Amino acid sequence: MSRNIRLTLRYDGAGYHGWQRQNNAVTIQQVVEEAVGKICGLFGEVSGCSRTDAGVHAEEFVCNFHSDTTIPTDHIPAALNSALPPDIAALSAREMDEGFHARFDCTAKEYVYRILNTKIRDPFWEKRAWHYPYAVGIERMREGAQFLVGEHDFSAFMAAGGTAKTTVRRVKYCDVVRNGDLIELRICADGFLYNMVRIITGTLLYVGQGKILPGDILDILKAGKREQAGPTAPPDGLYLARVDY
Amino acid sequence: MSRNIRLTLRYDGAGYHGWQRQNNAVTIQQVVEEAVGKICGLFGEVSGCSRTDAGVHAEEFVCNFHSDTTIPTDHIPAALNSALPPDIAALSAREMDEGFHARFDCTAKEYVYRILNTKIRDPFWEKRAWHYPYAVGIERMREGAQFLVGEHDFSAFMAAGGTAKTTVRRVKYCDVVRNGDLIELRICADGFLYNMVRIITGTLLYVGQGKILPGDILDILKAGKREQAGPTAPPDGLYLARVDY
Repeated sequence: MSRNIRLTLRYDGAGYHGWQRQNNAVTIQQVVEEAVGKICGLFGEVSGCSRTDAGVHAEEFVCNFHSDTTIPTDHIPAALNSALPPDIAALSAREMDEGFHARFDCTAKEYVYRILNTKIRDPFWEKRAWHYPYAVGIERMREGAQFLVGEHDFSAFMAAGGTAKTTVRRVKYCDVVRNGDLIELRICADGFLYNMVRIITGTLLYVGQGKILPGDILDILKAGKREQAGPTAPPDGLYLARVDY
Repeated sequence: MSRNIRLTLRYDGAGYHGWQRQNNAVTIQQVVEEAVGKICGLFGEVSGCSRTDAGVHAEEFVCNFHSDTTIPTDHIPAALNSALPPDIAALSAREMDEGFHARFDCTAKEYVYRILNTKIRDPFWEKRAWHYPYAVGIERMREGAQFLVGEHDFSAFMAAGGTAKTTVRRVKYCDVVRNGDLIELRICADGFLYNMVRIITGTLLYVGQGKILPGDILDILKAGKREQAGPTAPPDGLYLARVDY
């Protein structure tokens, strides 16, 4: 009988062209499907909660798959880890109702964007944070971030190529904290548009540098024009941190 | 006129066969000498404070070189970083007396060994900590570590192949703390024998698991036999943390 297994993964995305299967590029979905196919057997595909971009990481990424494996659910992570490469780990597994779908049933996601705010780059944060060597005012960033909280049309914070039916999203919180040499931007919403966190990060760094004012965030939201927002931060600093159902 | 520049580096050693130049293997010394040669010009070699092994990291590694560069000292790190690969960074530079030598003038070094003590491996600690999934008693490790403090003959904690004239070293402190999912062993001494920190780590983990008693450390020191100590921990978790002059 087919079982529907929900799997939580952690991965360093530096070596992959994102989650979603592609021709001629190694993706996390492909590698996970190979491991699941080998260890559990797989009907159809492994469905991910989101399509993370090339170079983006996940502290917690949820996916699900259908399989007739007889491996007890709580033994599945260790079994899969023997077949997964070192930069991808299965953290936990849970058996779900037949209808559960990692993408469609997700109610909210939290991302964290890490900025290494030091003059000199750090080998231990290479490809895991954006090295941004300029002086940044955290309080201004935090003030600007508050204008993003709530339900808004985030058209200005969407890259070309997004295919969302609606550009309205509800941001539950958006916090900016300094953590040693890192600035961490943590944002939770019911959904995200294409490159939304990376454009928000680039725009809030403009606020932090005084290039624009915190209140300008409100005007950028209202105008809904991508060119009024800041640059797209690179993928290196972005982590999917939590997925809610 | 020749200047003697003391340079502090940070590096992720995962991609290198240690510090010291070798034929047929890429080492940190070789890569740093190439960058210094290109940016500053170099008389002789870049002398390192120690020969870190293959896969060992450095939060702070001190070396020195002689050059007739006209680059102001405080601009040297940024200039070198443009020529160094992403896994090696120059943190700071200082001009020294002609006689200064990074290895011979060093009075003490501090190493930290990081153990990831979780059931499941973590992609973000891959090659940067030793994944050790077994239950470990930190208090026992800490108790055992105290027997290492002071001046002792550390023959039992030296791998074959060491070429030291004397096997007596003075350990200033040896602390074991839990830091989230990590166990960190921090040890400072006037000098270290070949693989000394890695053998101490393997032995203290035996203590932590109850395979031997904390007081057995004293007997192992006294007997001076390598086979009585524990296994050599892998290089992945070892970081040179500080060098004193």
